[in-house]
Amino acid sequence: MAYIEVPEDQPGILGLLAFRPKMAKLLNELVEALLRTDEGLSAWERELIATYVSSQNGCYFCETVHGSVVTALLGGNESLVDEVKSDYTEADISEKLRALLAIAGSVQESGLAVTPEQIEAAHILGATDLEIHDTVLIAAAFCMFNRYVNGLRTVQPQDAELYRQVGIRVAREGYIQAEHCFSPE
Amino acid sequence: MAYIEVPEDQPGILGLLAFRPKMAKLLNELVEALLRTDEGLSAWERELIATYVSSQNGCYFCETVHGSVVTALLGGNESLVDEVKSDYTEADISEKLRALLAIAGSVQESGLAVTPEQIEAAHILGATDLEIHDTVLIAAAFCMFNRYVNGLRTVQPQDAELYRQVGIRVAREGYIQAEHCFSPE
Repeated sequence: MAYIEVPEDQPGILGLLAFRPKMAKLLNELVEALLRTDEGLSAWERELIATYVSSQNGCYFCETVHGSVVTALLGGNESLVDEVKSDYTEADISEKLRALLAIAGSVQESGLAVTPEQIEAAHILGATDLEIHDTVLIAAAFCMFNRYVNGLRTVQPQDAELYRQVGIRVAREGYIQAEHCFSPE
Repeated sequence: MAYIEVPEDQPGILGLLAFRPKMAKLLNELVEALLRTDEGLSAWERELIATYVSSQNGCYFCETVHGSVVTALLGGNESLVDEVKSDYTEADISEKLRALLAIAGSVQESGLAVTPEQIEAAHILGATDLEIHDTVLIAAAFCMFNRYVNGLRTVQPQDAELYRQVGIRVAREGYIQAEHCFSPE
């Protein structure tokens, strides 16, 4: 049971969104704008940053949902998400994305932890200001979403196949349309 | 200079919002919905939670802007904000608000740090589920805003009178209308 009375059949953030529709609309629009675009960073790279930060924050629900979306967007490749969560510095990703994950990791600790050297390294590897901006904002936003989901102790199912299906559905429809993605279609 | 090229005359989050208008609209709507209402928690209590979390996150800009809004909403009382920032457990506020600040303080550390005992204490002191929900979401949202503002190393002026005027203007107009609150009226 969560810390507040939310619909028990809606796991993670979904129960909270059902509890507070006014905020739900804004939070859904925010996550859609942050993650469902290929401006600079592609959608799977954005989802990967969200997954990594959620994993660092110990938010099983967010880490698994967004990891499943990465996997779905990459056509079923699950190993990349596992590699990034265990040690992104050795993962099979571009040097630029590694530099952006380093920035995201600092943001997860504290905004004050991001260093000029990290920003310079990302710039040298070809990251634009827009990409650095979006990396910081995605990482910061998941420090919000993770705290929201864990702070109210929401129910977080452990069924891997369920998350796999949610990932496929969100990858296809996005967050606003797939709002009830944990319920049967 | 900030880490990315933003308008130099727009301090803190304002330069970032000018850089990324698509996100600006959503973030402004979110802060307006979270803070500019008296549903359960009054607007000044919401601003106080935002101020406290920002102070714990070391975000001078957010801490000072929202602290100034609290002061303006309370008719010029500056000492309450100082009391809460230095030790909220001794501040002249209700027991219920103290219990909610304890929850907010845990959220600032990690969503996983919120304890059943903290929730129970808040409930016993009369906090509703809605008030607990909004406390957690406000605290979580400022973990995002603070990381966004500090993570991109925005310019944060140190002029106390400037923030005082901004606080008065935001208290009167809200965040959407007072979007350019650091520029002369």
